[in-house]
Amino acid sequence: MPSLQASHTLAELADRFGLELIGEGAHAVSTVGTLREAGPEAVTFLANRGYRDQLGQTQAGAVIVRADDAPDCPVNALVARDPYLAFARVAGAFDRRPVPSPGIDPLASVHPQSTIGDGVAICAGAVVGNEAQIGRGTVIGPGCVVAPGVVIGDACRLVANVTLCDGVRLGTRVLVHPGAVIGADGFGIARGPDGWEKVPQLGGVVLGDDCEVGANSCIDRGAIGDTVLEEDVRLDNHVQIGHNCHVGAHTAMAAFTGISGSTRIGRNCLFAGRSGAHGHITIADGVTVSAMTMVSKDIDEPGTVWSGGIPARPLREWQRSLVQLQRLGKTRGKRRKPNSSKGNNNE
Amino acid sequence: MPSLQASHTLAELADRFGLELIGEGAHAVSTVGTLREAGPEAVTFLANRGYRDQLGQTQAGAVIVRADDAPDCPVNALVARDPYLAFARVAGAFDRRPVPSPGIDPLASVHPQSTIGDGVAICAGAVVGNEAQIGRGTVIGPGCVVAPGVVIGDACRLVANVTLCDGVRLGTRVLVHPGAVIGADGFGIARGPDGWEKVPQLGGVVLGDDCEVGANSCIDRGAIGDTVLEEDVRLDNHVQIGHNCHVGAHTAMAAFTGISGSTRIGRNCLFAGRSGAHGHITIADGVTVSAMTMVSKDIDEPGTVWSGGIPARPLREWQRSLVQLQRLGKTRGKRRKPNSSKGNNNE
Amino acid sequence: MPSLQASHTLAELADRFGLELIGEGAHAVSTVGTLREAGPEAVTFLANRGYRDQLGQTQAGAVIVRADDAPDCPVNALVARDPYLAFARVAGAFDRRPVPSPGIDPLASVHPQSTIGDGVAICAGAVVGNEAQIGRGTVIGPGCVVAPGVVIGDACRLVANVTLCDGVRLGTRVLVHPGAVIGADGFGIARGPDGWEKVPQLGGVVLGDDCEVGANSCIDRGAIGDTVLEEDVRLDNHVQIGHNCHVGAHTAMAAFTGISGSTRIGRNCLFAGRSGAHGHITIADGVTVSAMTMVSKDIDEPGTVWSGGIPARPLREWQRSLVQLQRLGKTRGKRRKPNSSKGNNNE
Repeated sequence: MPSLQASHTLAELADRFGLELIGEGAHAVSTVGTLREAGPEAVTFLANRGYRDQLGQTQAGAVIVRADDAPDCPVNALVARDPYLAFARVAGAFDRRPVPSPGIDPLASVHPQSTIGDGVAICAGAVVGNEAQIGRGTVIGPGCVVAPGVVIGDACRLVANVTLCDGVRLGTRVLVHPGAVIGADGFGIARGPDGWEKVPQLGGVVLGDDCEVGANSCIDRGAIGDTVLEEDVRLDNHVQIGHNCHVGAHTAMAAFTGISGSTRIGRNCLFAGRSGAHGHITIADGVTVSAMTMVSKDIDEPGTVWSGGIPARPLREWQRSLVQLQRLGKTRGKRRKPNSSKGNNNE
Repeated sequence: MPSLQASHTLAELADRFGLELIGEGAHAVSTVGTLREAGPEAVTFLANRGYRDQLGQTQAGAVIVRADDAPDCPVNALVARDPYLAFARVAGAFDRRPVPSPGIDPLASVHPQSTIGDGVAICAGAVVGNEAQIGRGTVIGPGCVVAPGVVIGDACRLVANVTLCDGVRLGTRVLVHPGAVIGADGFGIARGPDGWEKVPQLGGVVLGDDCEVGANSCIDRGAIGDTVLEEDVRLDNHVQIGHNCHVGAHTAMAAFTGISGSTRIGRNCLFAGRSGAHGHITIADGVTVSAMTMVSKDIDEPGTVWSGGIPARPLREWQRSLVQLQRLGKTRGKRRKPNSSKGNNNE
Repeated sequence: MPSLQASHTLAELADRFGLELIGEGAHAVSTVGTLREAGPEAVTFLANRGYRDQLGQTQAGAVIVRADDAPDCPVNALVARDPYLAFARVAGAFDRRPVPSPGIDPLASVHPQSTIGDGVAICAGAVVGNEAQIGRGTVIGPGCVVAPGVVIGDACRLVANVTLCDGVRLGTRVLVHPGAVIGADGFGIARGPDGWEKVPQLGGVVLGDDCEVGANSCIDRGAIGDTVLEEDVRLDNHVQIGHNCHVGAHTAMAAFTGISGSTRIGRNCLFAGRSGAHGHITIADGVTVSAMTMVSKDIDEPGTVWSGGIPARPLREWQRSLVQLQRLGKTRGKRRKPNSSKGNNNE
């Protein structure tokens, strides 16, 4: 599995990825590194302006830079309009991480009535249920559970210990990280005379092509119809998508994002860490939600940015803010009384 | 596993679930749907007033409605006092989701000193430890781990990849969704001379009858005595219950709720998404905690509603609120000076 | 597995753990309990002043107390400078929780090219990949996945259903609770012309000695270099550590803490529940971050305390605070108008 060290010349990389090379085309690189730590054998990049100070000292074999940073690059430069995107592609040339080989491990449990495509790997400890369908070249990693009737497209990968419940359908090239759970029951309970009664969750989950689901994230099955993620939706770890949500293509959600049930989210939205949305609302395309921010009602205007998080303050200072904030809550009541109209004493 | 399509007449459903039928009793339905998408073969319901607009256009086979909505129902109506509860029950009649058959899979590991009740299913990849006891009709799904000495009641289901650590005891009909972890160590560490020292977590976890634990949720074992969930507690996904908490019957917690250690929560409480409570406090019966709200001290009055979350605002507007909020934190200091006594009231 | 009840006299415990005994040295105890519930066979402790009221009524066999509480202790007292730390050690003497015995279970999958130390236990359903190395006395619990090339030190324990991806290296005595995922891909995506393109995550994860990782927590692999936790870092459940973070020794993080990528956190920091930090920032040693608080920029001063969480308020009161808070956001705009210059300046 760890294979031979792949090595590429800068000329080769420039050519393959459409970059302008300023420097020595014959220089060979075999890995990637950070601006600060990369040596001559590594390619690095400068995208985040916060790291610009480190450019002058870098000892990398080459730096992927924007044209306007190139003059300040002390080593070979690979010029790109979008250095981060270019880096993503270049890094792929050095990806030698192990991938399970095709075949079914003797310690996997694969139901005889399942349909397994060519070149599929099913690893030890994996369980594939009755009438499940697994597309060509897909990897079912160790410890993964694929429930009866699940449909998985071609070239997908369930890394390890993933659970897909019945009624889940994945497109092609879907990548699911360890511990993720797709298709568990939505949180549907109704008050009965003797306590809660469960609302059967009879829908499924549909993920479009190229979706990625982070470690320990959950996408609940629909209560009635399906929960849907359109193509190329990207979820980080610890994300929660409630039953019957519909998430538009290319939307990305960072860790701990939580979307309550039946909410409809547009295409190309961005949810920062620990953000979320209430249930039964609609959010337009291209909306950005800041970290720690909870959307509580429809957002109709596309491309808008919404926020509600509070950055940390020194404890004492924040405690005083809180006192004032709570007084604001009490003040209003006072103002309704007649005698509150005079004066001020603003708390 | 997908069995024959079950079909029921409306008369049959009305009779079985005590509903008043307005319309054609012989009409047969075989599934459920949403108001908007249900066709003549499906039953739907109207509970959330937000969807009332869709009633007039529905093409469902029948709609479960409150009496006062019935006149506006363009198709067959099944009248219920609580349409959501009635729907929960009716939907159960159409639940054809696959359930593992009784028996022990050859790729399950079941300790010879465990006690397995009649009709139990233990699926591939499951591991049942020494002296574990599993009640009648319980399903231990694929990849589940039942540690030595765990006691599970009758008719429970661990869906898949669930972990029950030693010292866990479940009542009857407990449903645990994939990835949930019950009985992991609580977070107990003490500062020693050379760093942290672990506080052994020697208690267990007890779940009453009819509890439901969502996907990837965690309920920690007690440090000394047990962590306890009384009967019919319902947890959504990604919930965290700290060591030695005690949660009263019928309390429900939505996704990302977190309860710190040794907190005592009453019966019939509701915790909305991403809410929580500090440790070592007590919360009365019937308390509701809003989304993104952190309870930091005892709540003594039953039935009260508590809140602290901030709904998203347009970015610029929120930034201005934040600036003012931070000024409030600094203001207080100033006000202690003599000349701050004259004031004004621009809030 | 549940073994004989270990029993110790108070004299023995006092001697072994360096405590002063006030009372009957021959009294034997065999377990631990809470102040309120412990009987004569149990040791308890008083550390949190909030429980001081319960001291007078305790019926414990002995209470571990500070010297100034000893006079009020109605039963045997074991006097310690730090009762919680002393309790942690004493409790260890009563820890009889089952631990898997050394050996490889026939239902474990262990690659022939892996290196397994003496006294290792590999339980049923565990999968150990090619060229993985497992140190002496380590326990790989049921359902755990150890990817190819992973290196695990001596005396570690993966409790159950843990996933270690390729490129992970653990020191000695590392304890990982169920469902935790170490080494999953960081959230690296770049906008391409046709949607997101994945940024390969080529770094690994390094955990120092004595780290503890809570249930369902995630530590992402580095994008380029490694994600690093120095020794004795303690993570509770549902924690998220982004790619390329560096966490200093002895730092502890409570449940739902989330650290975005490339952030550098000092030694001896404390993160309370649901706190977190933005990416690409630096936090000094000994910093404390309160519950529900998000650090958004560098904290340079060691030992400081930061806060931003809002304690729950009665719903009505909080709604009024919110209205005022939103007005503050709108007010500022008004002030930019000429006529806003007169007025006042009370903040």
